Amino acid sequence: MISFESDYTTGAHPEILRKLTETNMEMMSGYGSDRYCISAREKIRAACGSQEADVQFLTGGTQTNALVISMMLKDYEGVIAAQTGHINVHEAGAIENTGHKVMTLPQHNGRIDPEELETYVRDYYQDETYEHMVFPGMVYISHPTEYGTLYRRAELEKLSEICSRYNMKLYMDGARLGYGLASLQTDVTLQDITRLCDVFYIGGTKVGALCGEAVVFTRNNTPDHFLNLIKRRGALLAKGRLLGVQFDTLFTDDLYFKISRHAVDKAEELKQIFRDKGYEFFLESPTNQQFVIIGNNKMEKLKEKVAFGFWEKYDGEHTVVRFATSWSTTDQDMEYLRSVL
Amino acid sequence: MISFESDYTTGAHPEILRKLTETNMEMMSGYGSDRYCISAREKIRAACGSQEADVQFLTGGTQTNALVISMMLKDYEGVIAAQTGHINVHEAGAIENTGHKVMTLPQHNGRIDPEELETYVRDYYQDETYEHMVFPGMVYISHPTEYGTLYRRAELEKLSEICSRYNMKLYMDGARLGYGLASLQTDVTLQDITRLCDVFYIGGTKVGALCGEAVVFTRNNTPDHFLNLIKRRGALLAKGRLLGVQFDTLFTDDLYFKISRHAVDKAEELKQIFRDKGYEFFLESPTNQQFVIIGNNKMEKLKEKVAFGFWEKYDGEHTVVRFATSWSTTDQDMEYLRSVL
Amino acid sequence: MISFESDYTTGAHPEILRKLTETNMEMMSGYGSDRYCISAREKIRAACGSQEADVQFLTGGTQTNALVISMMLKDYEGVIAAQTGHINVHEAGAIENTGHKVMTLPQHNGRIDPEELETYVRDYYQDETYEHMVFPGMVYISHPTEYGTLYRRAELEKLSEICSRYNMKLYMDGARLGYGLASLQTDVTLQDITRLCDVFYIGGTKVGALCGEAVVFTRNNTPDHFLNLIKRRGALLAKGRLLGVQFDTLFTDDLYFKISRHAVDKAEELKQIFRDKGYEFFLESPTNQQFVIIGNNKMEKLKEKVAFGFWEKYDGEHTVVRFATSWSTTDQDMEYLRSVL
Amino acid sequence: MISFESDYTTGAHPEILRKLTETNMEMMSGYGSDRYCISAREKIRAACGSQEADVQFLTGGTQTNALVISMMLKDYEGVIAAQTGHINVHEAGAIENTGHKVMTLPQHNGRIDPEELETYVRDYYQDETYEHMVFPGMVYISHPTEYGTLYRRAELEKLSEICSRYNMKLYMDGARLGYGLASLQTDVTLQDITRLCDVFYIGGTKVGALCGEAVVFTRNNTPDHFLNLIKRRGALLAKGRLLGVQFDTLFTDDLYFKISRHAVDKAEELKQIFRDKGYEFFLESPTNQQFVIIGNNKMEKLKEKVAFGFWEKYDGEHTVVRFATSWSTTDQDMEYLRSVL
Repeated sequence: MISFESDYTTGAHPEILRKLTETNMEMMSGYGSDRYCISAREKIRAACGSQEADVQFLTGGTQTNALVISMMLKDYEGVIAAQTGHINVHEAGAIENTGHKVMTLPQHNGRIDPEELETYVRDYYQDETYEHMVFPGMVYISHPTEYGTLYRRAELEKLSEICSRYNMKLYMDGARLGYGLASLQTDVTLQDITRLCDVFYIGGTKVGALCGEAVVFTRNNTPDHFLNLIKRRGALLAKGRLLGVQFDTLFTDDLYFKISRHAVDKAEELKQIFRDKGYEFFLESPTNQQFVIIGNNKMEKLKEKVAFGFWEKYDGEHTVVRFATSWSTTDQDMEYLRSVL
Repeated sequence: MISFESDYTTGAHPEILRKLTETNMEMMSGYGSDRYCISAREKIRAACGSQEADVQFLTGGTQTNALVISMMLKDYEGVIAAQTGHINVHEAGAIENTGHKVMTLPQHNGRIDPEELETYVRDYYQDETYEHMVFPGMVYISHPTEYGTLYRRAELEKLSEICSRYNMKLYMDGARLGYGLASLQTDVTLQDITRLCDVFYIGGTKVGALCGEAVVFTRNNTPDHFLNLIKRRGALLAKGRLLGVQFDTLFTDDLYFKISRHAVDKAEELKQIFRDKGYEFFLESPTNQQFVIIGNNKMEKLKEKVAFGFWEKYDGEHTVVRFATSWSTTDQDMEYLRSVL
Repeated sequence: MISFESDYTTGAHPEILRKLTETNMEMMSGYGSDRYCISAREKIRAACGSQEADVQFLTGGTQTNALVISMMLKDYEGVIAAQTGHINVHEAGAIENTGHKVMTLPQHNGRIDPEELETYVRDYYQDETYEHMVFPGMVYISHPTEYGTLYRRAELEKLSEICSRYNMKLYMDGARLGYGLASLQTDVTLQDITRLCDVFYIGGTKVGALCGEAVVFTRNNTPDHFLNLIKRRGALLAKGRLLGVQFDTLFTDDLYFKISRHAVDKAEELKQIFRDKGYEFFLESPTNQQFVIIGNNKMEKLKEKVAFGFWEKYDGEHTVVRFATSWSTTDQDMEYLRSVL
Repeated sequence: MISFESDYTTGAHPEILRKLTETNMEMMSGYGSDRYCISAREKIRAACGSQEADVQFLTGGTQTNALVISMMLKDYEGVIAAQTGHINVHEAGAIENTGHKVMTLPQHNGRIDPEELETYVRDYYQDETYEHMVFPGMVYISHPTEYGTLYRRAELEKLSEICSRYNMKLYMDGARLGYGLASLQTDVTLQDITRLCDVFYIGGTKVGALCGEAVVFTRNNTPDHFLNLIKRRGALLAKGRLLGVQFDTLFTDDLYFKISRHAVDKAEELKQIFRDKGYEFFLESPTNQQFVIIGNNKMEKLKEKVAFGFWEKYDGEHTVVRFATSWSTTDQDMEYLRSVL
């Protein structure tokens, strides 16, 4: 069955497997010190356009969020996120498991509003009892958000400025960063993100890798003894090459961006197919995740022919469902989808 | 340069890469629910010879130790290990990071002595202040140990009986389990381990996989909501197929055992080479890790030609070094080693 | 200066100090095993009207909340609280520090609405991704709430029934429980609470003790090795008598209830004084905390003469302030307040 | 029955109770900001002879150890202690519960040997795999030790110098510090300790208070937002006056030192009584805890007449028992003891 359920239903981009196979018999040192990790770090730093950008590799998104957030926060601090932020909803309490609170702000199509952020933090410090409360130490944003939406550069600049003024870190969850960068409607570049965030990650798992996320500490601010800290949290791979080779491949010849652009192009085609068939969208998403409103009866029939994700109830008779494209989405997938809608 | 530094200097067994490539375009559900994870579980259960054996996949050894130990212990319990146990020395405090104490017993070539274990636990419960101390809730053993040595079946039976009597879990760290099972000098089978331990893991990373460990809960005693618990600890892979395909391959046509036997055979050859050259061993290891006593001057010259691991000082003029073989050790490696010793 | 800032601005009820002095030279065993702890447990159990009620003593409210909640939750569970719940706002993230998430529901004058609770939990289990989210394992309510309000017995019965049906614990934070039981407008008794909650605590610190809270596990459900668990968390007093003597005194001759009634009576007088002077209340509180709306200019002048608590902005020109009575509030305090309003 | 079981079998020194009663009706602000906390801090700072000494109050010894150690360590660090250190044996794993490892050195009558410490740390940094191990970030010593013994000033200076050189904190557990300072055989003063340690605590619970320990951060190095940090760990008392009044009393007119000297004097008398009766000591203790070797039969008879502590087996026919004196030990207690030995 054809699946649009997510962007991680197939394996890795073939070029990654080819490179893993090609380098397989090379003897390399472990724990992220091999030549491919080193090369990948240099290529990513170049793509970020900053010599102050440290690059570290981890295995998955929740692991990355929990590690980065807990490393960057002081003991008395928590992290602010949108109500719909992945860390607040779908990570099984991984942040709280590190001892830190997630404080929530309203979501606007998945985004935080800079004004509401500023009000929250200003009110916090004006409260006479603030020493008994959790200090806001970081702002977590996802880009694209859980709804596939994007921040404008001006919004990121405003968030960055507020964070700087109130001594908070700005952290971007880029599980699907490629699709954000490749969007036809964005004005945000990887260099912008590097300039505006204290730390962010470039998602691999959902953008063509078997596994792996590249964390960028943008101000040479990798926590001391990072290797020890991730070992202590069970996140250090003995064969670090698995991550090094993958990211080295993704950042050679712009593969990461080409993969992402392909998925975005397919998403635009998919949108048109739904529009042609008279469907409405729950919101306007400029990336690879599309949220469609569908009648419940139609939904039941459709799911016998194609796989997709259930998102939330729309009203008594309709549901919001998610269709995701990826590097591996084909023209045939599109034609098939059109034929079954 | 030829390396005997560890058993994880090359990539994966070629058959694993072949299978990853072959299945790459299959659409599969995520988080360990795909057909290869299911198949691998069944094959491992069959190899363990028990329908009560639950099989779960994790990414690395320290992650596995920290997760399994913290899930199986009650809040007031700690884990007993040999002084040289990996969890006590080389995991950056990953167990303590989960809130639990590692209590140590003397090591005997890496092993715990059952008599000493029994004395420790009996004394604990006879102490009038035991409610103020950490309860012994689990015994951790590695097999092979950090020195490459093995427990005899009779020792495991004694340890298991003591654990059962004092209400402790018996947990085996099998990071290199294959090399233990394939040893020419062992009387311990995978079925024995399944019968005697409450939980153990079958190491993949150091036995031919890119990454991955298969945890066996031997009495249908997987902790409730295991998926949630590992997600919360950042250990759940979105593309669970990465582990499923690898273990399915390792447990097809006895590949895991063939790989392990190959490494053990090469280790026997390596031992003979060192003996022929007049070297002495720090201890007698029946598996793929060999600990050789070498003069410091000789060591300095040798390490320009071949890579190996430094273990500990022997005396002012000699050092104990480690040579490890693996699935990828070749006849040429052996000849080269002989030529440079 | 006269202070209505809180119910913990004076020391202990004189009878408590008298009893501490009287018993001072008695030699007693430590850690809560002394005769006064034993006697206090029996008296509290009798007051609760249940032989299944286990009683344990701790030092303060946040300590109690963090310990009880973390002991009663499974690793994959979090606790549900009102947005204004003390654990969500004013405990510096003490619950999250134990690794557990606080999930919030809207507050209605400090209370949770049973219907909204049921909807939340039902939706949780209907969500296809619930295994990736934090399980609701407990419902936290404060009684009186942070706004001095109370639940009706019928509401507690409904909450208890929902908890039971969805396998959640019901926990009541009784930091000011005495004032709730002594309210003129309540239909909830200590026996009701014992019957309906899985665990609750009877606050001492804010009801006349120097320190101390009595936790009641209502179904003989004290966690195993409780002493070890609280020692491990730094909450075990060597001189447990400090808590035993205090609670034994509070539960002799109904002192706890007399103290509480006195404060409630004074609060009723205080309400009348404010009403006589033309003030309006932010909400109707039937216990010892009163929330008054006051003009900002008036507030500035008043605080030079009497101490009170600032709660929240009402509008641009008014503020909500808190006046609290206690066991030590006197007629003179009342007269003085009337004279300065 | 007369008890020498510990130094916390009676209540508080009467002067403390008198002062608590005298100040009981004073209205004071909470959470450690009251006038008695402020006064006590100043008196202790003066006694320490350093304007750089910050003083903070906590409730008990295990709480203090866990809080101070976890606040002062970085995430990748653990604490070094003697094998017999209280944190390693009798605190139910409270340190590990904060996520940090306790690394042990051999004990010499309860003490750490500076040479062995230096060897440990030097070897650590020479190990090629040290990034995979727990960094030594602090040295924990108890003074008096768990065996009542004391460090010499020269030893403390050596320990301090090693800590400084290897970037470790030196922390002294002073649960019974008064008895150490009042010993007839010590050359260590409170000023020495202030000069040589990064942080230490002056025990109250075991030296005449109902509860309470005064932590001294000797280099104005109180962790940022200390109040928030201890609130988050459930260690902040609403009625902070309980600790303030007690320590203010203990440090007025040298009461702390007088109490301690009294107990030491009684311990010297007690020693003489045992010697007169022909007993031998397990070791020479210059403080208020005495460890006597006693025949098992004699022990059984004696414990019907007087309470004492069981320490450890000496040989098949003898046991080591502990007799402790305190501020409340009387001449009559001495005479009685002589009569029953």
